[in-house]
Amino acid sequence: MSRLEYVKILGIHSSPRRYGETYKLLRIALEAARREGAETDIIYLGEYSIEPCIGCVSDDILACRFPCIIGDDSFNDIGRKMLEFDGYIISTPVYWYSASGVLKNFIDRLTSMENMIYHTGKSYLEGKVAGFIAVGNDTGALTTISWLIVTLVSMGVHVPAWSLAYHEQKTGVENNRAALLDAANVGRVVTLSAKLLKSQKTWYDASLEELVDNTLPRILGEVEELEKKLKPLREKLWSRKTSS
Amino acid sequence: MSRLEYVKILGIHSSPRRYGETYKLLRIALEAARREGAETDIIYLGEYSIEPCIGCVSDDILACRFPCIIGDDSFNDIGRKMLEFDGYIISTPVYWYSASGVLKNFIDRLTSMENMIYHTGKSYLEGKVAGFIAVGNDTGALTTISWLIVTLVSMGVHVPAWSLAYHEQKTGVENNRAALLDAANVGRVVTLSAKLLKSQKTWYDASLEELVDNTLPRILGEVEELEKKLKPLREKLWSRKTSS
Amino acid sequence: MSRLEYVKILGIHSSPRRYGETYKLLRIALEAARREGAETDIIYLGEYSIEPCIGCVSDDILACRFPCIIGDDSFNDIGRKMLEFDGYIISTPVYWYSASGVLKNFIDRLTSMENMIYHTGKSYLEGKVAGFIAVGNDTGALTTISWLIVTLVSMGVHVPAWSLAYHEQKTGVENNRAALLDAANVGRVVTLSAKLLKSQKTWYDASLEELVDNTLPRILGEVEELEKKLKPLREKLWSRKTSS
Amino acid sequence: MSRLEYVKILGIHSSPRRYGETYKLLRIALEAARREGAETDIIYLGEYSIEPCIGCVSDDILACRFPCIIGDDSFNDIGRKMLEFDGYIISTPVYWYSASGVLKNFIDRLTSMENMIYHTGKSYLEGKVAGFIAVGNDTGALTTISWLIVTLVSMGVHVPAWSLAYHEQKTGVENNRAALLDAANVGRVVTLSAKLLKSQKTWYDASLEELVDNTLPRILGEVEELEKKLKPLREKLWSRKTSS
Repeated sequence: MSRLEYVKILGIHSSPRRYGETYKLLRIALEAARREGAETDIIYLGEYSIEPCIGCVSDDILACRFPCIIGDDSFNDIGRKMLEFDGYIISTPVYWYSASGVLKNFIDRLTSMENMIYHTGKSYLEGKVAGFIAVGNDTGALTTISWLIVTLVSMGVHVPAWSLAYHEQKTGVENNRAALLDAANVGRVVTLSAKLLKSQKTWYDASLEELVDNTLPRILGEVEELEKKLKPLREKLWSRKTSS
Repeated sequence: MSRLEYVKILGIHSSPRRYGETYKLLRIALEAARREGAETDIIYLGEYSIEPCIGCVSDDILACRFPCIIGDDSFNDIGRKMLEFDGYIISTPVYWYSASGVLKNFIDRLTSMENMIYHTGKSYLEGKVAGFIAVGNDTGALTTISWLIVTLVSMGVHVPAWSLAYHEQKTGVENNRAALLDAANVGRVVTLSAKLLKSQKTWYDASLEELVDNTLPRILGEVEELEKKLKPLREKLWSRKTSS
Repeated sequence: MSRLEYVKILGIHSSPRRYGETYKLLRIALEAARREGAETDIIYLGEYSIEPCIGCVSDDILACRFPCIIGDDSFNDIGRKMLEFDGYIISTPVYWYSASGVLKNFIDRLTSMENMIYHTGKSYLEGKVAGFIAVGNDTGALTTISWLIVTLVSMGVHVPAWSLAYHEQKTGVENNRAALLDAANVGRVVTLSAKLLKSQKTWYDASLEELVDNTLPRILGEVEELEKKLKPLREKLWSRKTSS
Repeated sequence: MSRLEYVKILGIHSSPRRYGETYKLLRIALEAARREGAETDIIYLGEYSIEPCIGCVSDDILACRFPCIIGDDSFNDIGRKMLEFDGYIISTPVYWYSASGVLKNFIDRLTSMENMIYHTGKSYLEGKVAGFIAVGNDTGALTTISWLIVTLVSMGVHVPAWSLAYHEQKTGVENNRAALLDAANVGRVVTLSAKLLKSQKTWYDASLEELVDNTLPRILGEVEELEKKLKPLREKLWSRKTSS
């Protein structure tokens, strides 16, 4: 197995209950990740005491960096561990249509890793891959997962096809075949895509400013021509309005 | 250039105005896609008359398939075109914190391509890659994009790191350097990841049912042990409650 | 019964299927509204052909007004009808974790009523009350409803306590007692709050600019004092950072 | 002033920074509340140490009640204070398109007040009124507020027209006239609607089960008739499909 084919996937479990449905789905996902050749591990956020982010970036964008200045080593230890992994599977219970408070605090603290853009030119999470599991007694799993996905993508993390699984019932997830199969596929797609995407070292390229400068004038010119042609058609509509 | 390195990226423009800020950002993104070697094209949804989905799956899951039975060739023509492309960049104005009605109707009709899972075992969109652009005079770009992302991922589409750009101001986007650079990077990451992910032919693997069956009993056993150990600690807490 | 106690509640049904679960819940809600003394009616959006909004406000904020310039009387007829009612119960199927395309087009066109702020100083929907029903085979009802709520509140509509009901199962809603009871309560709370809120004629008060002008300097002064006191504590934290 | 016209509005400030833009907007909102005759106060969540919810309801729906069993009096003290107020204005910074972790933990703990439904038949928050303020350097205020609104409505809280204000810029909010005026109106509408809605003592009425039982059979019968009439039209469409 070449170095590029070797990937490590980390489960990040954010339920305060370690014996619930969320955990079962995470375990299934990690089994599937191993079947695809990944090495896996789990972090239980509930066993750490992760302090809330204090929003230093609002004072000074450069004040926020990894390791985070907040003096609990909890978060920084987890952050260091994350650097060694290629992909993450984040599992959360659904509390009020959203991630657990523990996970929210954790995500907010990840700002310290993402904000390294301003210090080193690159988010410490860039190029990682993530999948998501959410479990609740009621609706809201989708609200939870859509927020997690857009947040991770905004930190530089890839989100592969089908990388979400959820269970929104009061009964045990062992009776929800669709959720179990989806969770296994979360493990699969995170592992497969982590392998395929690993060779690319840089994703966000700030030097594209040059392409912007070179092409923008032409695009603006073309858009102006379109406006000249199309806007009068609209103006006719508006004039009609006054008589109605 | 090998076949795998050759990718085609389709802009899907859903603003009724072809001369606005949404369009400028889409053009920048496609310029960057071409710089990474992609062939590109644009579809203007506003030039088609896309009828709303009539929800056949609620009557019969098998009643919905591609080509869609609704008799406007508009959508089916676009759908056939999408099959030839490896990635999409979807641009939308923000109307009430969400995609344009035109785009919503289009996404709903994509169900006919995703639902091929039930006919051929595979979503027609599986393995494609997508990036997103949203523009509004006010807030809501993020609500719009998070919905688009989770929807596309649920149809089998990959969403790479940094694949979103937005502009939420009344002024022209030419003055928003961050949005322009982000849009160029949307073109870049969609193209790069389309190349890298193209070799993998199947993502969702229904045969993982077997892995679920083989591993679930062991996981359930372990979780039961954890519950025996951890739940009594909680029960102590609850008993305390009665006296408060 | 005094004039203030007499309210009219309009069901706005946006499913293309008139015989589904969405419709059953809407009917229950309207029964409860009548029990509270409301007069009720239903509009079936699927029977109209509502064209998409073309975004005139992006060209000129004053170009958008009611009646909308788009030449389908469908929307304007509905809009005129809405003016006669005190509350609305909007029911939608969940298509891709969101409202039906038909409903999205309808909401976008409501801009013409809300935008009357710029013509008459007041949204035509100000002071109305709304409740919401969403039904899907899968997750997403909450994403759908949260978008509808925040949009209506932003148009000047009140959203009372408990004014949402949903059903996320493949089976008939007649077996979901919680959803049925919730739907009845949607009818109840919309009617009750429409009665209580009806006496207040103006909600948004632009003359509060004066209060802003009168109080802002004092508030800014106090905040500046707080910053002088509190920011140095943070700066100490940041200096620690450099050594870690 | 009659007892019903006398209302108390509580600001719940969840930014860890007490000298920021979020706080300025909250102060403006409370000024306007006082101008409408409200008595006001502020709670600074950042000064409390609010432990995360541990999800007792997933073990036993009756295990969760107010006061919460978690042994930090922080939350329970705030909860007791909330009972004395008629309305709340919740202000939060936007961290990753969502509420601060501090606020998320607080909202999760409010479950103990909402869950009193199962103990006394009524949410302790039923009939209260809320407004919302969100501030960030970038997009996401709307995602944050839509989540807060739907959550509070689901706990039994009314959300009046226009009860949201936000500021999504890096510059001071004193330059954003629209946000300042919106914030003042948040204070106004929360106060006005708290007065008008106060006379109604019970909102959710579980005895509507009877109305459901009495009307459901008739509704189901009518829907069945509609299905007999309308479904064959669809079946014709599907048969056409097989030949395409």
